Amino acid sequence: MRIAAVEQNGQSFLAGYDEEFDVYVDLEIGEDGDLRKWLEETVNANALLVERWQDYAEHRHQFKTYAAENVKVLPPVKREGQNIICIGKNYADHAAEMGEKDAPEAPLVFTKASSSLIADGEDIELDEAFTKALDYEGEIAVVIGKAGRRISKEQAMEHVFGYTLFNDVTARDVQKRHQQFFLGKSGDTYGPIGPYVTVGPSDQSSEWKLETYVNKEKRQSGSTSDLIFGIAELIEQLSSGMTLRPGDVIATGTPSGVGSGFTPPKYLQDGDEIEVYVKAIGTLSNKVKKV
Amino acid sequence: MRIAAVEQNGQSFLAGYDEEFDVYVDLEIGEDGDLRKWLEETVNANALLVERWQDYAEHRHQFKTYAAENVKVLPPVKREGQNIICIGKNYADHAAEMGEKDAPEAPLVFTKASSSLIADGEDIELDEAFTKALDYEGEIAVVIGKAGRRISKEQAMEHVFGYTLFNDVTARDVQKRHQQFFLGKSGDTYGPIGPYVTVGPSDQSSEWKLETYVNKEKRQSGSTSDLIFGIAELIEQLSSGMTLRPGDVIATGTPSGVGSGFTPPKYLQDGDEIEVYVKAIGTLSNKVKKV
Repeated sequence: MRIAAVEQNGQSFLAGYDEEFDVYVDLEIGEDGDLRKWLEETVNANALLVERWQDYAEHRHQFKTYAAENVKVLPPVKREGQNIICIGKNYADHAAEMGEKDAPEAPLVFTKASSSLIADGEDIELDEAFTKALDYEGEIAVVIGKAGRRISKEQAMEHVFGYTLFNDVTARDVQKRHQQFFLGKSGDTYGPIGPYVTVGPSDQSSEWKLETYVNKEKRQSGSTSDLIFGIAELIEQLSSGMTLRPGDVIATGTPSGVGSGFTPPKYLQDGDEIEVYVKAIGTLSNKVKKV
Repeated sequence: MRIAAVEQNGQSFLAGYDEEFDVYVDLEIGEDGDLRKWLEETVNANALLVERWQDYAEHRHQFKTYAAENVKVLPPVKREGQNIICIGKNYADHAAEMGEKDAPEAPLVFTKASSSLIADGEDIELDEAFTKALDYEGEIAVVIGKAGRRISKEQAMEHVFGYTLFNDVTARDVQKRHQQFFLGKSGDTYGPIGPYVTVGPSDQSSEWKLETYVNKEKRQSGSTSDLIFGIAELIEQLSSGMTLRPGDVIATGTPSGVGSGFTPPKYLQDGDEIEVYVKAIGTLSNKVKKV
């Protein structure tokens, strides 16, 4: 099932998305659509959601539903309170296009400011005073459901709440100039995320195909089976020293085909539309707007 | 004046610290000792504090005070909700001891997970399964008071709430293995901060001396006048793409004398006590505890 944070008449709440009828279903969980808070307070959140969704399937008329066109989709996690952890060069073909001879021996781990998060449909700002090399990176992101430290690979999936789409928008010139990636990755609006989080009773993420389109032209195509460090491995390594918390986001890396990988580079321009697509999750779509 | 987040009888609040009487003064501001929230909601927070402190100086008996030994000092900012932004290699002598031939042309900007924050007096965990090279970095940190983006150097100080002490505890082996600094810097307990935030009507930070002691042995000694990128410059560069928010912390970098700069390296051991000292701010003291 798919869950989203949505706003309707100024009220935000967590909703299930029913693709068949294109409606959002108020599942009567969470306060103010705060997924992180709800995850923190809820034992067996995933099982509860699956059960609630089953209940909806059987008793549709007992739930409030809203036509998709009448709600505003928010970022599934709020703009504060959790880590947005990103993995660099986690697909061998992308590492190569970024000039690496060998795949990294350990994951490159950096963060984006959570203030960079925007929802599906919101604009990515192109501020030419800040960057002349704005780029996209389509990614699959994991949302942590259960806190943990020193999580083993074998137990990692128990800590996953679900999966969403992420565009790790990057100012390449800033990223390069400052060596560490944070600043070039953290511009306001540089973190499109959503629209849904796909949750399920078990993990089906090991062979997902990920595609990124710019103005309908396919630029990136990868599979989670090609990840150098898989999701369970990442969770083990990330949690070896720090506690992962509910609502933390782990963006798992991007395949080849980013703008800077082309000769000459295909950086983002005013009006460009970037779509990140995974069948089991949906499409994350955002346009570039010059400011 | 100095402000701290403290806890007394299970209640947390923002308090002024009166050094003369070694008491914490309830200034009746902020809810739950949440500095970030209070800063977000308060116009002219600094001026209000200075005024309140003046009021206290003149009418001591009208304020509730608590002996320092009876309160628990908390991290001045909470363990969630703000960025802990750090600047790497921002003192030329430290850049040299880390093997850099030249000072960086642009600041190295990375983050620590806010979950790493601990208060003055709390223990830094030494987990040998995670690191065999635990190190200290004494720093002066700026706490942002007023949100802003594209802040000029000239206006930067208007966005500063105050200054506190920070120990950018680092697992050197993890930092090196993962190239990007985040993971080796974000272990639980790796962010000692406090005890106070020094606020004032104007900036007096340009020639502060910073010292770090390990078991009373002086290891680091620097001056803010030696910063390669000064505080105003950092605020301008950091805010050029992203919005800085109230409660965001900018740790300004560490001078030479970290453990890994010695031959052989002097990494932290069980029981070591690290003190970071700036006269105008105070002393941040934490012990290492093997877990």
